[in-house]
Amino acid sequence: MSKLITVAQAARELKKADNILILTHAYPDGDTLGSGYALCRALHKMGKSARVECSDIIPDKYRFMFEDMGPAEDFEPEYLCAVDVADSLLLGDKLKTYAESVDLCIDHHGSNTRYAKKLVLIPEYSAAAMIIAEIINALGVKIDSGIAACIYTGIATDTGCFKYSNTTSYAMRMAADMLDYGINSEMINRTMFDIKSRARIELERMALESMRFFLNDRCAIMLITHEMIEKSGAGEEDLEGLAPIPRQIEGVHIGVTMRERQDGTYKVSIRTDNRADASSICSILGGGGHIRAAGCTVGGPAERAVKTIVEAVRSVID
Amino acid sequence: MSKLITVAQAARELKKADNILILTHAYPDGDTLGSGYALCRALHKMGKSARVECSDIIPDKYRFMFEDMGPAEDFEPEYLCAVDVADSLLLGDKLKTYAESVDLCIDHHGSNTRYAKKLVLIPEYSAAAMIIAEIINALGVKIDSGIAACIYTGIATDTGCFKYSNTTSYAMRMAADMLDYGINSEMINRTMFDIKSRARIELERMALESMRFFLNDRCAIMLITHEMIEKSGAGEEDLEGLAPIPRQIEGVHIGVTMRERQDGTYKVSIRTDNRADASSICSILGGGGHIRAAGCTVGGPAERAVKTIVEAVRSVID
Repeated sequence: MSKLITVAQAARELKKADNILILTHAYPDGDTLGSGYALCRALHKMGKSARVECSDIIPDKYRFMFEDMGPAEDFEPEYLCAVDVADSLLLGDKLKTYAESVDLCIDHHGSNTRYAKKLVLIPEYSAAAMIIAEIINALGVKIDSGIAACIYTGIATDTGCFKYSNTTSYAMRMAADMLDYGINSEMINRTMFDIKSRARIELERMALESMRFFLNDRCAIMLITHEMIEKSGAGEEDLEGLAPIPRQIEGVHIGVTMRERQDGTYKVSIRTDNRADASSICSILGGGGHIRAAGCTVGGPAERAVKTIVEAVRSVID
Repeated sequence: MSKLITVAQAARELKKADNILILTHAYPDGDTLGSGYALCRALHKMGKSARVECSDIIPDKYRFMFEDMGPAEDFEPEYLCAVDVADSLLLGDKLKTYAESVDLCIDHHGSNTRYAKKLVLIPEYSAAAMIIAEIINALGVKIDSGIAACIYTGIATDTGCFKYSNTTSYAMRMAADMLDYGINSEMINRTMFDIKSRARIELERMALESMRFFLNDRCAIMLITHEMIEKSGAGEEDLEGLAPIPRQIEGVHIGVTMRERQDGTYKVSIRTDNRADASSICSILGGGGHIRAAGCTVGGPAERAVKTIVEAVRSVID
């Protein structure tokens, strides 16, 4: 069970430490990497040795966070700090050796499993990077454009570019402060939100073609098969962020994305607007989740799975 | 030639006026409508008569700005105020009768043609709605959630949800202030940026299918034909915002969208990243524009148009 500490206490811990290994979560995103590299840059400015590690390969689009930093420092870690990692299982394969010995965790997930010795947890914050910015201030390190770009990216990615309901006015003001350090926010946002691989574009096209409408067009179901993934050449990273698409269609209250699994079952993601409860639908089907976003597994073949899903949706909305 | 006045002077003008007709530009967007309805709501709070007019039908997605306001007030206009209207021609057909007699124009376009008697012009601002917010403060009217939703929408839509390079820290801080008035920014952003008609989705699918790559995949060309528009059932509003798509593909420096015209020519929109100059390409083809976004017209048939465009692109990038 972690000891909960404040931002000021965390800064005091880090001031005492050196040879700091910063751990990010597997399948890294903009917040874990932005938090990690912002902190690492600040620690370097204090003259400390620090490096960021991740179990998975860091996608090219995040390269701007560290490409000017030179090769990662080589040292025997003395202090372990996890950022935006809600559960030690999320450290992934390569870093799981550190799971039991994390000294400090800095996180904003209410679901944090308190695996670290000490924990700064602020669930009200839209991004872990917001806590990092406060810690950097408490460390007395001047934020520069390199640090600011990392902090900005963490906030922008975790809020869907300030679009999601978790976007607080404080998050926007902190992002505004980062703009004032002279970052290229347009480049960051284009890289994070707009650029898609050709495989992804091709997969989206095929997925859109598969879209079918049910229950007076209130429910849209999009199917993603092995064949589509193979034909498009899509990799795992190209499969992210498809689930919201069916719900973005005008008049659709329940958007369903079905992805074929190796064993012939379907991984089902359901997104709803304020007129339907995704978690009720998924719990009928043996899954669960939140009111606007939930998931479950449904057996194949595809036609039967579609019928099963439509019946579950009908029973909840009628 | 307009007399340039300050925010405080504009507030003084409006304090003296009554029966105020607020004019928005044709093909209305979130900024002209957000500016218009925010100002109208503030004037109502002062006990003045005011209404917003537009030459075109206001799309349903902007309904939240005024649906709680009751029917528009009926009065003989005594004072004409144009918001976010850079040129009196942009008032459109229905409102062109007012073109010569606009008392006050509130705008942020550097290109404003100074057609109004008095003009508040702040080109540094990301949205006209930001000037309106300052005028409302100068009027001494308390901003409420209804006004805040309009101001927020103006800023969010003109900055592409805080994504474009015109997003200043002041714009983000003002948007943050609007969040603090308790608006539902998630609903606004979903409505403005995510929801697409079925016809639009179908048109996008067909357009993606038409995508072809040239010059070692650095140039992507997307074709939109009459047939696609007809088959998808897309209306004019569904055709907006297609031009950026080809440039969003990884590795593409020059994204081209060709739209078939009634006379058999093609309306060409070119978008580039920092490795190519769209305006040079378009000027070869008899058009023009900005460095990252430009346009021109090219004769048909399609195959010949594609060849012409690819040659122009080649001559500029090689």
